[in-house]
Amino acid sequence: MARNITPKNENYSQWYLDVIKAAGLADYAPVRGCMVIRPTGYAIWENIQAKFDAAFKKTGHVNAYFPLLIPYSFLRKEAEHVEGFAPECATVTQAGGEELEEPFAVRPTSETVIGYMYSKWIQSWRDLPVLINQWCNVMRWEKRPRLFLRTSEFLWQEGHTAHETEQEAREETRRMLEVYRTIIENELAIPVTAGEKTAGERFPGAVDTYTCEAMMSDAKALQAGTSHFLGQNFARAFAIQYQNREGELAYCWTTSWGISTRLIGALIMTHSDNDGLIIPPRIAPVKAVILPISKDENVAENEILPKAKELSAKLDDELGGMFTQVDTDFHARPADRFFTHLQKGVPLRLELGEKDLAAGTVRFVRRDTGEKIDVKSENVIDTVKNILADIQSNMFNRARDFREANTHDAKDYDELKAIIDEKGGFVRAYFAGTPEDEKRIKEETGATPRVILPGENRGKCFITGNDNAKLTIFAKSY
Amino acid sequence: MARNITPKNENYSQWYLDVIKAAGLADYAPVRGCMVIRPTGYAIWENIQAKFDAAFKKTGHVNAYFPLLIPYSFLRKEAEHVEGFAPECATVTQAGGEELEEPFAVRPTSETVIGYMYSKWIQSWRDLPVLINQWCNVMRWEKRPRLFLRTSEFLWQEGHTAHETEQEAREETRRMLEVYRTIIENELAIPVTAGEKTAGERFPGAVDTYTCEAMMSDAKALQAGTSHFLGQNFARAFAIQYQNREGELAYCWTTSWGISTRLIGALIMTHSDNDGLIIPPRIAPVKAVILPISKDENVAENEILPKAKELSAKLDDELGGMFTQVDTDFHARPADRFFTHLQKGVPLRLELGEKDLAAGTVRFVRRDTGEKIDVKSENVIDTVKNILADIQSNMFNRARDFREANTHDAKDYDELKAIIDEKGGFVRAYFAGTPEDEKRIKEETGATPRVILPGENRGKCFITGNDNAKLTIFAKSY
Repeated sequence: MARNITPKNENYSQWYLDVIKAAGLADYAPVRGCMVIRPTGYAIWENIQAKFDAAFKKTGHVNAYFPLLIPYSFLRKEAEHVEGFAPECATVTQAGGEELEEPFAVRPTSETVIGYMYSKWIQSWRDLPVLINQWCNVMRWEKRPRLFLRTSEFLWQEGHTAHETEQEAREETRRMLEVYRTIIENELAIPVTAGEKTAGERFPGAVDTYTCEAMMSDAKALQAGTSHFLGQNFARAFAIQYQNREGELAYCWTTSWGISTRLIGALIMTHSDNDGLIIPPRIAPVKAVILPISKDENVAENEILPKAKELSAKLDDELGGMFTQVDTDFHARPADRFFTHLQKGVPLRLELGEKDLAAGTVRFVRRDTGEKIDVKSENVIDTVKNILADIQSNMFNRARDFREANTHDAKDYDELKAIIDEKGGFVRAYFAGTPEDEKRIKEETGATPRVILPGENRGKCFITGNDNAKLTIFAKSY
Repeated sequence: MARNITPKNENYSQWYLDVIKAAGLADYAPVRGCMVIRPTGYAIWENIQAKFDAAFKKTGHVNAYFPLLIPYSFLRKEAEHVEGFAPECATVTQAGGEELEEPFAVRPTSETVIGYMYSKWIQSWRDLPVLINQWCNVMRWEKRPRLFLRTSEFLWQEGHTAHETEQEAREETRRMLEVYRTIIENELAIPVTAGEKTAGERFPGAVDTYTCEAMMSDAKALQAGTSHFLGQNFARAFAIQYQNREGELAYCWTTSWGISTRLIGALIMTHSDNDGLIIPPRIAPVKAVILPISKDENVAENEILPKAKELSAKLDDELGGMFTQVDTDFHARPADRFFTHLQKGVPLRLELGEKDLAAGTVRFVRRDTGEKIDVKSENVIDTVKNILADIQSNMFNRARDFREANTHDAKDYDELKAIIDEKGGFVRAYFAGTPEDEKRIKEETGATPRVILPGENRGKCFITGNDNAKLTIFAKSY
């Protein structure tokens, strides 16, 4: 049916771009590697932001804003950090018509400049913890850009916290990982594995990095959110010191954590099909679209439209926070109107035709399953509520089942290679290798360690033979 | 009392910076001219954003996101635009470790890149109007930065719309000016004069610019929001064309409009006093602070605190959208605790001491007037509601009265010069001069035409002698 969308199994990358185009989510910008987030895409981002922002505030965080430009001397203060980020930075060398004495990096992330400010703000243990989040744009120059997944500029939030003790900072790191997991699973309906990253996949400058790792519908992995325990690395680099309860000068323990517009890419690749986008109801800007339908444009406009508007107002009113839309595109054929909303991923379509009106029913069409049911007028409100909840859980379960079906175990390197090569998906294997081992595995298989599974499960490493290796998921990834 | 705040009449600029510092609103960043918006300042910005964003959506606008970087070739497509903005731009010349073929400007405003995208999106009259807004950061390099008022980077929103007809675009320009006026007056309690700008003060590339002009408490003017009718200037520069209802190719009519974090500067300078910040209740992140007080820390913590928390929960619950805070800083002296909230501008302080508890009352202290009243427990909710509403209108009226008292009429240039020189404030005079005349007036008096008063009032121009001159406000400005 969807002639404007390449089927997934023909060309997954093209399918992804076609879905984005058909739903009007984003466009490439005239600046290489950058994107324009169109209104429909941005409305999804606003809903995602609202969920995370509320959870950050509930866990005691406040928002602030730090500068876009970062002196290169700041990046250089943390050795691993500059090595990781400097090659990707965009650089401002002139401003106000003059050559700058010191060039600035457009922020690729803000640990350094925020660390510098914290060193000024924090004096005593009474000032701790500092729990700040920032919503902003960042730049990391991309040679092979891909809408939402890898763009030279993207939108994100970066949480930055400073604590008295190592334990508190470690707890914060895990607390925010859990906030991420909960929202990504419950609101975005994307099942994730939350756990630690291996040394080779750590954030540059972090002691430990944790991730929420998701599986896309081509069975590749996508890192959906990360939380970093930074130890005292940035505190030492930027002199974030405080007078402790004993009156001595001590370094803070810091964390950082972030999610970005790449979550929209994850939403698309987890849920959508060959007809286009599918958005989980809790994130969808339009949760239900109501279509007055008649062969006679006048009947549609003058007799059915008023009833559609009434239903829309009632739904918005009674289901609070609901957002319905009434389709008034009477000049288009019904099939084309259905198709528009199908491609935009609206979770529920409510059709109001002459026959439906006569029978006192409304036709419900689910986006996730295509199922059609006729619902009596008096039951419409409750049924909308129940079906939206059912769509939400069905989408999550479907994605989880797909992940389970595409997760395999490998007892040795040969088996891991074979699975990655033949089946793809997630491969669980015991691993205790070094970053150099990770590099070699990537070169030889294309796969990287995505996440160490939580739990006490230990076994023999498929690379080093070490007996105390942790069960780790390997996969090709975005 | 406020030893950390320089009195206004001693040094207004220092007073302004001291208020910002004492309330913890912002800091200078380590990048010259840039600022860090601290959590209290950012919470005010979030509240301002929420008011405007809701109004934009109510008037049919949607949000989107366009790239930070703009090719210089884009800026050059509109002659006045490049002349106005290029000297202030920050320039990215390297990225990803390589010299760029074409340098990019960090956006000073986005008419050009948005115009380019509109030319791709708009095909037919059916695609119009396009009503898009963007919340983002922009850069305009500042030689003499001032927190919130003039910083090299600031946060703002920029609305960009495209229409079929000149009339529609003109209506949109005025509609958004009125949205600005309403919110700035009703929510921020800042009285403004909404009207047209003179030719010399127009946005570079605009046909007409409209402004909401406010008076600060030193009687200087501040431009609080602007709305531009761009005619077909940008449509021609970027080929924003559509097939009209007659099937012919036509250029769109476009508008743009913006408010920024400088509104926080306006809030501070309109309302605050020598004790520190005063924030209008509708914008205040904390609308009422509740202080459990006793000489005995144990009594305060164990007996009074639970009642304070109960009252706080009740207020938050019953006044919906209210935000109260309970002060638990028991180790500090009551006078110091009062002072903290005074400096932070919390509209209402509710004191709960042992005597109050025994008498069944709560002591109310208003931030705007300092007035203290004892309110019976059963009347607390209603009284909080009423007093907050009264503070809001009192703050607006006070600012309006100040503006009236500092507005004068000048019948000729000598009188205008004398008023600007001796009294300051707004000077109303008939003006029909050219941008060159405006330049000369500025050089000779320090004042510029801020806004042409709406209405049919006409008289003899104090510069040209022209009889059909419009009544115009002149003032020194931020």
